[in-house]
Amino acid sequence: MKLLRYGEPGAEKPGLLDAEGGIRDLSAHVTDIGGAALDPAALAELAKLDPQTLPAVSGSPRIGPCVANVGKFICIGLNYADHAAESGLAVPSEPVVFMKASSAIVGPDDDVLIPRGSEKTDWEVELGIVIGRKAKYVSEAEAMDYVAGYCVAHDVSERAFQNERQGQWTKGKSCDTFGPIGPWMVTKDEIADPQQLGMWLKVNGETMQNGSTRTMVYQVAYLVSYLSQFMSLMPGDIISTGTPPGVGMGMKPQRFLRAGDVIELGIEGLGTQKQNVKADA
Amino acid sequence: MKLLRYGEPGAEKPGLLDAEGGIRDLSAHVTDIGGAALDPAALAELAKLDPQTLPAVSGSPRIGPCVANVGKFICIGLNYADHAAESGLAVPSEPVVFMKASSAIVGPDDDVLIPRGSEKTDWEVELGIVIGRKAKYVSEAEAMDYVAGYCVAHDVSERAFQNERQGQWTKGKSCDTFGPIGPWMVTKDEIADPQQLGMWLKVNGETMQNGSTRTMVYQVAYLVSYLSQFMSLMPGDIISTGTPPGVGMGMKPQRFLRAGDVIELGIEGLGTQKQNVKADA
Repeated sequence: MKLLRYGEPGAEKPGLLDAEGGIRDLSAHVTDIGGAALDPAALAELAKLDPQTLPAVSGSPRIGPCVANVGKFICIGLNYADHAAESGLAVPSEPVVFMKASSAIVGPDDDVLIPRGSEKTDWEVELGIVIGRKAKYVSEAEAMDYVAGYCVAHDVSERAFQNERQGQWTKGKSCDTFGPIGPWMVTKDEIADPQQLGMWLKVNGETMQNGSTRTMVYQVAYLVSYLSQFMSLMPGDIISTGTPPGVGMGMKPQRFLRAGDVIELGIEGLGTQKQNVKADA
Repeated sequence: MKLLRYGEPGAEKPGLLDAEGGIRDLSAHVTDIGGAALDPAALAELAKLDPQTLPAVSGSPRIGPCVANVGKFICIGLNYADHAAESGLAVPSEPVVFMKASSAIVGPDDDVLIPRGSEKTDWEVELGIVIGRKAKYVSEAEAMDYVAGYCVAHDVSERAFQNERQGQWTKGKSCDTFGPIGPWMVTKDEIADPQQLGMWLKVNGETMQNGSTRTMVYQVAYLVSYLSQFMSLMPGDIISTGTPPGVGMGMKPQRFLRAGDVIELGIEGLGTQKQNVKADA
């Protein structure tokens, strides 16, 4: 299933993408796409529905973040072998973990706002893992039992705030609109192998990132198990798994986003995002 | 007002501490202590209530985290001049910002669990700021308008996970039970000067930290303004403002928590916490 949320910010309704690419309203069956609705048993109930029997949503509503009430937006740094090589950095001996503010989350096609004072706003296409069940101290072998599905995640990053403003990366990762997720939360049964997904990102039509989850160093099951040794992963938590080569910071000369730019990105089987870049008011 | 939440984990009810130290039930007036209930206008409505007319809560119920549905648990590092001096480190040129997982939050007297594999679980008494209104790009002069109140926050930290396990501090700050908050959210009108509050922490009756918010480098109004330049602060967000000298990591020899230890901590006017330390199951 491809689950989504549509409608105005803060008033999104749960929906499902049908075989023809139309949105079907799920409001009669779940209150929202998030938390308990992501439990495998709850998803199995939804899977029994015949999309043709659900109300078709007319028009082209805004698509919201694909998961509601994300408790933790956990990110993995430097997790692609080719990106590490490109950066001249060693692959970390274990995953580098940081967090984005949940208030950074927006829909897949919402504007990306360049914060006041920013000169170095950058892009990062990433595979997002959506947690379906509380996971604590789980083994790599059982880790996939706790995954509800996947989504495209855009880990927008301000490099000066991240690297030149004292210490931790939080300031450069948590700005409003720096976390587009969606368009859909694709249930894991639809993704035969999450480590064989092409992924790409374009700015103003020019391809900047063109990679594959194949070169991910610490892979999906490992990451879920690893993180669960440090903290409970909760239903609706998102793990953004790092980005392949081609970010603006790594270019010579460096290249960053400016108001007026258009970003498009996508991952095989998970849909695409498109954001207009604007200056924050 | 001293607002609190009482009852079993996940089923807490909103309450208010009366002049005699008894708990009064606020369920008829607010659904919970968090989000919209922290808005200045909402708090002003609660302040009109005569505590004597509210139902008295009998017995000694568990006290839960003083704020519900914390969206962001933002922490400031190395923010006490005397702690920096003790550590032989320079005061940072601007605040060091990191985040704790919201899943780490527990009540003030709940057990602190030492994670599997931990050898270096440490204590940090901190002043917590509770945000009452959405704050974005606010000046230092207007920052206090966005503060609902204060609480005791215990920034429990695993130093090996934080400093010896690759990169960012997230892993050592976000373990389950590493964020006791409360017992109360004390509205700001009750605290004449948040920069003149004594604070202390004891382990097994022995005083480890004995400081004051007076030596805080970046102070409350500054921090709210500063953080709001990077991200929207939302009602119910908590900012934990750093710890004074006396953490275990800084001792010679270093000293860390062990199962069976008892931690007590408090801040002038904000109440006390008491935690039993246990090994995580």
